[in-house]
Amino acid sequence: MNYSAIRKILGNVLEFEALFLLLPCIVALIYREHQGIWYLACAAVCLVIGRIMASLPARRDVFYAREGFVAVALSWIVLSIFGAAPFVLCGDIPSFTDALFETISGFTTTGSSILVDVEALSRTSLFWRSFTHWVGGMGVIVFILAVMPKTGGYNMHLMRAESPGPSVGKLVPKIRETAMTLYMIYFGITVVELLLLIIARMPVFDAFCIAFGSAGTGGFGVLADSCASYSLLCQGIITVFIILFGVNFNAYYFLLMSKDKKAAFQMTEVRAYFGIIAFCVITIGINIRGQYENIFLAFHHAAFQVGSVITTTGFATQDFNLWPQYSRALLVLIMFIGACAGSTGGGMKVSRVLILFKVIGREIERYIHPRSVRSIKMDGKACDPEMVRGVCTYLGTYMMVFALSVLSLTMIESCDLETIFTSVVATFNNIGPGLNMVGPSANFAFFSPVSKYILMFDMLAGRLELYPMLLLFAPGIWRKS
Amino acid sequence: MNYSAIRKILGNVLEFEALFLLLPCIVALIYREHQGIWYLACAAVCLVIGRIMASLPARRDVFYAREGFVAVALSWIVLSIFGAAPFVLCGDIPSFTDALFETISGFTTTGSSILVDVEALSRTSLFWRSFTHWVGGMGVIVFILAVMPKTGGYNMHLMRAESPGPSVGKLVPKIRETAMTLYMIYFGITVVELLLLIIARMPVFDAFCIAFGSAGTGGFGVLADSCASYSLLCQGIITVFIILFGVNFNAYYFLLMSKDKKAAFQMTEVRAYFGIIAFCVITIGINIRGQYENIFLAFHHAAFQVGSVITTTGFATQDFNLWPQYSRALLVLIMFIGACAGSTGGGMKVSRVLILFKVIGREIERYIHPRSVRSIKMDGKACDPEMVRGVCTYLGTYMMVFALSVLSLTMIESCDLETIFTSVVATFNNIGPGLNMVGPSANFAFFSPVSKYILMFDMLAGRLELYPMLLLFAPGIWRKS
Repeated sequence: MNYSAIRKILGNVLEFEALFLLLPCIVALIYREHQGIWYLACAAVCLVIGRIMASLPARRDVFYAREGFVAVALSWIVLSIFGAAPFVLCGDIPSFTDALFETISGFTTTGSSILVDVEALSRTSLFWRSFTHWVGGMGVIVFILAVMPKTGGYNMHLMRAESPGPSVGKLVPKIRETAMTLYMIYFGITVVELLLLIIARMPVFDAFCIAFGSAGTGGFGVLADSCASYSLLCQGIITVFIILFGVNFNAYYFLLMSKDKKAAFQMTEVRAYFGIIAFCVITIGINIRGQYENIFLAFHHAAFQVGSVITTTGFATQDFNLWPQYSRALLVLIMFIGACAGSTGGGMKVSRVLILFKVIGREIERYIHPRSVRSIKMDGKACDPEMVRGVCTYLGTYMMVFALSVLSLTMIESCDLETIFTSVVATFNNIGPGLNMVGPSANFAFFSPVSKYILMFDMLAGRLELYPMLLLFAPGIWRKS
Repeated sequence: MNYSAIRKILGNVLEFEALFLLLPCIVALIYREHQGIWYLACAAVCLVIGRIMASLPARRDVFYAREGFVAVALSWIVLSIFGAAPFVLCGDIPSFTDALFETISGFTTTGSSILVDVEALSRTSLFWRSFTHWVGGMGVIVFILAVMPKTGGYNMHLMRAESPGPSVGKLVPKIRETAMTLYMIYFGITVVELLLLIIARMPVFDAFCIAFGSAGTGGFGVLADSCASYSLLCQGIITVFIILFGVNFNAYYFLLMSKDKKAAFQMTEVRAYFGIIAFCVITIGINIRGQYENIFLAFHHAAFQVGSVITTTGFATQDFNLWPQYSRALLVLIMFIGACAGSTGGGMKVSRVLILFKVIGREIERYIHPRSVRSIKMDGKACDPEMVRGVCTYLGTYMMVFALSVLSLTMIESCDLETIFTSVVATFNNIGPGLNMVGPSANFAFFSPVSKYILMFDMLAGRLELYPMLLLFAPGIWRKS
């Protein structure tokens, strides 16, 4: 384990966190809130510690995949601890456990909240809370890679460890350019959404927070009813943009910067993603039509909710906990599927589910024609067998962590199984709300501290796609190489 | 597709079903019940149809794995349809759908019942109902292979398709001897349990039915309260035997017939199986101790219930639906794990779960030491990579069928998600009772006919380990080769 290189990366992370913490300070200035002082203090502390850690020399030679995984896992933990501090210090969230839960929920773009009354928070804290979604959506390490000068040969390992999906391709030959391109697309779409929301007469402060929340597919709102009290037009804009942020960003790259614009429309994963959304919106719309004045409203809310859940955002216009069983169950199912790989969304990822379906199809075909040897294809190209194996293993690991989490929670909590089951589904897939006691109109405050730490682990494991977090517990990982 | 060979096998299955149907006739004679007439009539019909189908000549040349799978799937469907007929004709279960559900539940050793009042049934029907468990436990095709003279080179394909577990080994070089050995062990242990139950003063009729139900890990009882009103001694005997029937039968072979008796105790799967049982009994016993007079009773019921659930039997001495959440959730979890491969139990099988754990461990190790190439080992021997791949694919297929079943049920039924979720868990893993409205003291009668057919498919898919049933729907499978 190359400790010095990891220390340097953690230092960089803290330096950038200091930068991020200045944004809520500006908000505090505008709204004249005293909480800003604490954000400034935390920024200063981060800067000093980060500077020291980053400036000490580091060995450059050995930096393998495992160093990348550990560095990313630790970065996210450090980022969350320092990000939680101002909540506690300014008094908005007095309990450190709760503040950490809220911050991890923010950075991992989960959106599960322990706040009983979100509107009681200062604007400064509300802004910081939503901004963590934006930082976490594309990834803080990817951000560092995009803006820092070249720091060595280990960037690919870092980017692989933080980016979601079964395979991370380089868009352009150099890592830094790839990271920069991704962030430019990300920034651009966020700005467009922000402007449209302001034009649609959403309050400017809300528009910022909602844009951050939808860009990162996070789900923190600023009102107690999430997005229910915004106009239908605003809700419609949010629907379109959360669905857009769940698309594989490679599609935007093809569309905006490549000569081969058709490639964007030919990506199997993106097609499947829109196919699933269409299917869910139509069937749920029909299923819930009786609960609304007219069919348009039913489809409006169905589209918002399906987009919000499949992209693992977690905004709500309606309490879908009160919908019929089919709609509730289908929403839970698409919580597992999640968004496209290479998007800001969570879950298993559409491409993994597609590969899984193809693996099953091939297995059945093998029984019919035992001698047929067919490789799994995606986008017309044969998949690397190692990646196919990795997808199957991922599913297995995913199920194990899921089962262990549910079981641990049942040992501690006494609430019903549906609540426990869906609270793990909602945090592990980085969605936000679940069903019953953790439904869209409820929160996670009632859980005991131990349960909260288990759910925090699930959020981080879900966002970082399991292995970085699991590796922290692997025997032998901390040995010096 | 070699239709004539499959027809011949179906003919054999019906001939043997005629034989099986004579047993309830004997019961009818003893208890002087008129229902016996209908069982006799059905036996005659089975014999005539079976004779005709089996005696027409068959092509012997092509019989591949797919013919084996289709033959087994169709055999079980035909077996169930003809097995359900006497229930309807004698009036004990007037609805054909209900009778088919009960019969499939019997043959697949599930034990889920649509009977609101089980004690209203005639003894003849009760006996037949329990006897289907015994036939289904080891498998009807395996039975035919054991007692019929050699019928061609395709026996291995048939046995593979019907026997549970990731890999079916031949115990002795010849298939027929292997099948015979398995049935001898099966018959022997059943007789021992029967005698012990009679010695422990259980009524002889009950002892027969309970012995059949525990041998096949089925779970049909003859009393409304399942096993709750039997003496503690009887319950203890049942506990021991259901756990024994969940052990890989290879262990008994090593113990009874092989020189290498130590091998029985060195099987990783069997050790893990007993380890899981010990862990569950201890933690559930502690968890439920407050609900019982003394700690002994708590552990007694914990042991019974854990044994009943992990072997997917489904007997109950207590309504575990009323236990604390941890115990309920743990029971649902071990419903998925199931018993050992090569036993009469259902579920995913302990060996699959073990291999999955090892695959995950290897995956994590690969991140730490990217260049390490380590094969998965079981019982000290390296596993065939094809088998490891098969286990991962099995998990994927399993989850897909599971999710689709839950989703379909939510479209039809309006009951709570926990009921729907656990009714699929209970039928797909061949357990019997679930939680809430399908808990140990409830039944499956309230489901609509369409839901019942979905659950019947799940029971058959669970017992035959997915592929035989899925293959029936594969395009191109019915083409003549």
